[in-house]
Parts: sequence; C-alpha cells; structure tokens
Amino acid sequence: MWARTARAKVRQASDRAWPRRDGYPASFENIYLSNGASSGVNTLLHTICAKPETGIMVPIPQYPLYTATLSVLDARCVPYYLDEEAAWSTSIDSIRTAYDQAVAAGTDVKAICVINPGNPTGASLSAKDIQSVLKFAASHRLVVIADEVYQTNVFIGEFISFKKALRDLQRAEPGTYDGIELASLHSVSKGMVGECGHRGGYFELVGFDPEVAAQVYKFISIQLCPPVLGQCIVEMMVNPPRDGDPSYPLYRAEYDAIFKGLKQRAYALYDAFKEMEGVECQEPQGSMYLFPTIHLPPKALAAAAAAHRAPDEFYASRMLDATGVCVVAGSGFGQKQGTLHFRTTFLAPGTEWTERLVKFHRELMDEFR
Amino acid sequence: MWARTARAKVRQASDRAWPRRDGYPASFENIYLSNGASSGVNTLLHTICAKPETGIMVPIPQYPLYTATLSVLDARCVPYYLDEEAAWSTSIDSIRTAYDQAVAAGTDVKAICVINPGNPTGASLSAKDIQSVLKFAASHRLVVIADEVYQTNVFIGEFISFKKALRDLQRAEPGTYDGIELASLHSVSKGMVGECGHRGGYFELVGFDPEVAAQVYKFISIQLCPPVLGQCIVEMMVNPPRDGDPSYPLYRAEYDAIFKGLKQRAYALYDAFKEMEGVECQEPQGSMYLFPTIHLPPKALAAAAAAHRAPDEFYASRMLDATGVCVVAGSGFGQKQGTLHFRTTFLAPGTEWTERLVKFHRELMDEFR
Repeated sequence: MWARTARAKVRQASDRAWPRRDGYPASFENIYLSNGASSGVNTLLHTICAKPETGIMVPIPQYPLYTATLSVLDARCVPYYLDEEAAWSTSIDSIRTAYDQAVAAGTDVKAICVINPGNPTGASLSAKDIQSVLKFAASHRLVVIADEVYQTNVFIGEFISFKKALRDLQRAEPGTYDGIELASLHSVSKGMVGECGHRGGYFELVGFDPEVAAQVYKFISIQLCPPVLGQCIVEMMVNPPRDGDPSYPLYRAEYDAIFKGLKQRAYALYDAFKEMEGVECQEPQGSMYLFPTIHLPPKALAAAAAAHRAPDEFYASRMLDATGVCVVAGSGFGQKQGTLHFRTTFLAPGTEWTERLVKFHRELMDEFR
Repeated sequence: MWARTARAKVRQASDRAWPRRDGYPASFENIYLSNGASSGVNTLLHTICAKPETGIMVPIPQYPLYTATLSVLDARCVPYYLDEEAAWSTSIDSIRTAYDQAVAAGTDVKAICVINPGNPTGASLSAKDIQSVLKFAASHRLVVIADEVYQTNVFIGEFISFKKALRDLQRAEPGTYDGIELASLHSVSKGMVGECGHRGGYFELVGFDPEVAAQVYKFISIQLCPPVLGQCIVEMMVNPPRDGDPSYPLYRAEYDAIFKGLKQRAYALYDAFKEMEGVECQEPQGSMYLFPTIHLPPKALAAAAAAHRAPDEFYASRMLDATGVCVVAGSGFGQKQGTLHFRTTFLAPGTEWTERLVKFHRELMDEFR
C-alpha cells in the first residue's frame, strides 16, 4: 500500500517537474518507475525484441548493459560507431551504414539506442545531432531509446533532452514527426544525487502506441514495484527544493559544490592526458567519464600478446599495479578495430592521483620504447 | 562499493544463519541476493528456459508470477493440480500425470516449482510429501524450485525446508540423490519482517552444476545489485538478535506478537468460513492466506453470466461492494474446472470484519436461493 502511494506521488510529481526541465509538459500516465535505469532498459528491450531477427541499434562504444540484455533476449545488436574526431558525437552516415548492412543481413531493425551524455565517451550531443537521429528514426520507423541518466552531468553548453528536440521538431514541422516513439530513461544513481544503491529510476514513453504502452505496464507489473526508498528519491530528484524553500540554500550549496568538484576533476584529468605521450582525449563535455585513445609502442603490444592479454587490458592492468587506479579497458565497451582506449571516471575525490597516472605512463612508454 | 560490501556481509551472514534453521550448513558462495523473491524466480526461469518446448511444472492454484514469467519467456507451463482434500498438499499421482502428458505433447520438462507454505492455498507440506517431490525430481532429472518465502508463517507443525528434506534423504541413502539441483527462495516481504517495499530477497543454489551457477551469476550481474537497504534487511532477517543480545527481548516480543496475531486472525477467518453455507475451507496451516471453495446456487451463476463475469469474480466483486473486503477470485490463481474459490489474507489487523463476511454471504445466498 505504501509502495503504491509512493508510486502515485512520484508519478504525479513528474507533472510539476518536467516543464521546468525542458519547457514541455509530461503526464504521469507516461512515467514508469524502475529499479534504476537498468531495469527500464530491460523492460523496453524485452518489449521490443520479438524474435531472433529483431535488431537494436547500439552505439559503439556502449555501456555493456545493452549488448548483455540483447544476448539474454537472443536478439541482434546492430552496432553503429560514434565519431571520436567529432567529440564522440553520433554520425548519421555511420548510423545509415550500420542500418543498411543490418537490413541486408536480414535483420528487422526496430529501435535505436542513444546514450547522452555518453557512457563511456563523455560526449554531450548538440540539438542538431539529436534531431538528425530523430529524423532518421522517423524515416525508418525506429523506436528511440534515449539513455539520459547523465543529464545533469554536463560541463559544456546545456543538456538537450531527446524529448525537447522532438517537441521542437514537431512544433517546427507540424504533422511530420507525430509517429515517433521515444523512451527516455533517468536514474537517481548519477547526477549530483548519486544514490546508486537505492535503485531508483524511471522512464517516460513519448508517442507510444497505447497497446504497446499497455504491454510495458503489464511487463513491469510482474516485477511488483521498485524499492520504495528509491521511489522517494526519484521524487526528491525531479522535484527538488526551490528558491524560497527552507532547505533550498543548503541544497543549492551542496549541488553546486558537487558539480564544481566533478568539473574540476574532469579537467585535471584531461590536462593530465594532454601531458601523456600517445594519448589523445576529447575535451570533457558530460557524464562522469573520459575515454582517451592510447597509442602503445610495438614492444608494448608484443608484451601484451606474450601475456595473452588484449593491449588495452594489459595497459589497464599495469596501471592498476603501478598507481592503484582502476580503469576499464576500451574492449569492454567496444571500439573500432585497431584502436585502443580506456574509460576512467573522475568520481573519486582529489586530483593528486592524476600525477601518478602521468608518471606511470611515462615509465611504461620508456620501458617499451 | 557500499552495495558490494553489504552483499558480501549478507552472504557471509548466511554461513552463520543456516545451521540454526535446519541443521545443515550453507555457504555464501551459493547465496544470490535478489530484488525480493520475484527477481530470483525470474533469474532461475530465465536460466532454465532455453526454447519454446521447455516446460516448467507449476502447481495449480499458483502465485501468478510463474505463469506470467513463462509467458514472457515463451516457454511452457506444465500445470499440476494440488490436492484440496489433502489440505492442498502435493500429489505425486497428479505430478506424474501432468509430467507424462507434457512429455507426450513434446514438452522438454526441465523443472518443478513448489510453493511451500502455499500461496494461495495456505498449505504446509510434510517431510514425506517434500521427499516424494524430490524423489520424482531425481528420477526425472528436474531442477526443483522451492518458493519458501512463507517459511516462518507456519501455524501447525514446523516448516521443513526442501534443503533439509534433501539432505536427510542424501544422508539416509548416500549417493542416490547427489544429482538433484535445488533452488530455494526467500524474501524479507513475508514472515514477521514484512518489509515488502524494500525488495530484499535471496536464493540458495544446492547441488547446481558450477557452469550453470556461473550463468546465473552472470545473469544477475547485468542487473547490477538489489537495493542496499533490502540487502541489509536480509542480513537482519537471517541473522536476528539472539538470546543475550540487548535487543533480543524486544525482538522476541514483537516477533511473537505478530506471529500470534496472524494465527488468531487465521483461525477467526476459518471459524467464519465454517458458518458460511456452501463454503469449505482447509484448516490454516501456513503462509498468509486461506483459499476456501465456494458453492454458489444456480441463480447466482446465472446472475454472474448475465453480468459477463466469472462466478468467482462476481462473488468477489459483490463482497467488496458489501463489506469493503477485497479478496482475489480463484480464477486468478487457477483452479480445477468447475470449482470456485477465493483467496483472502489475514494480514489486516482486527477480526471484527469476519462478521461482515458472514452477513454478506448469508444475504447473497438468500438473494439467489
């Protein structure tokens, strides 16, 4: 009973919260609470994937939840490569090529996933790029799954939601984009809230066929309810203290301090990468990650092969041993053939450890030069 | 990090908790935390159901999570009827008949689910009945899924876990039952804890092939972690205050008062059903439910048909209108063709409302006599 009340309260809070975010209203009827965003992704992919030929477009590099879930569902991942040179933005050419190849291989492509701001890339998409994806989706009748869990972690410019971009398009060209089905996911695990252990999240369905929405509702009903405390935290996140509320000054101070700290650390890390030979990194834009390219000398590649490790895993393992800093090898997210990356986060407090990375890298390069 | 620490702590607590429950040790390596028991059932059925011909034996009446999940998985439910005349116990004849029919229809039967104590039946199985199921499973190489979430809600005799019954069998006839794979589920949502909103639960795998257990581990890893608070409550449930601890007297007093209240209300309801014409109910044994049979007069059946309702739904709807008491029609759980039931719980405080049920039933019978 408590759980049901909390759910109704959170969903109704969304009516108030959305206009403040992007200027367009939302209805609680279209909000579905979830166990963090992960269970929302699971619900959406379960609902969309109907047969082994069903294909879902997934950005590469990607957060591995997507490929893992498609593997469980025995459906096809249709990878499209993000454009590292354009700050890891989406590339319509790359999306079109991937789509055409999949269709030629007999895949029934049903949806496109976008992670914005990006994990592991740290990208933050422009309105133009988002609208390109939406137009592609409209012309190919693809559901758009927008993983927007890092929406408040944006350091350059502003976060533009897929919903805002869609509503702007619909306003500019009435009638043209009415058929788009968009699902947008959010979570209490990221942003300045960071309550990942409480498994709070939700997704909003925009423009979904009511019969499909009814199936989504049935599917989540089998899972009973997300944790009550997570539901409450969702409510607090979408409906935070406002100017004039007694708790607002403290909320604002804490929020801004966390944001500022994340941004400072992102740039400290970025500056460290600039000092590192053979390391190239895009400027920090959003999310909690940087995903630099590394170029390793041939002797290092040979040493990795001798140790039966992928070169990026070998590098990450050596970094962990030398510095105590754990990064994830790019192969865990997917990367273009022949390229090497690693994902690192700037969540941990302090920046003094960036010097340890620079020192480690210099010594490793010297060892294998 | 916190989540991982909590998980390790809970799982290690199980090493201490199990010997106290049924005399046989458990290892935390075999304990998997879940979002309540439901996500555990989901994990197990996902792991076992490999193709549309896969069949899972499910008791009828059942908690509908099982059929709903099998429907999502596009696998087959192999229903076996519980024996109402034997206090809703399992019947090996009924299990064998269901199994043989399924195999004859091309079903690859892989597992048998048992809910003990029963939902919606309120049954509590004897050691003999449990061992019969285990022997059947052993001879047909079926995984046993024991849904034991009501294990502390037993009013007559004692709860016997499938694991204890299995270990007793293995001790009595060494070597004969080594191949049995048993999964036992538990939850913080029931019992005297009743913290259903926190989604804490776990399952223990007993005798599972390590390669299968590795797949289970991989599957749950995609879901990240159950809510941290639910994990903590699991720890408190499996490792409660002991005699001599400062909090023990209060814990004992609260626990006993909740248990006593549930039992009193179960019998108050049972006594009320005895007064009701055409209602037959098994004596309360366990869980939180009674599941009486109702015999309705022909005019009531005709009135239900005229209202386009199943007779038990018609009855439950009339009861809700007349008394404010909501029960679930037996058709929601499955029941033998031509029989009518409803499930009611005795969770709500007080017993005065049982008189309202008696009055409603008498008036309904008079109306349609």
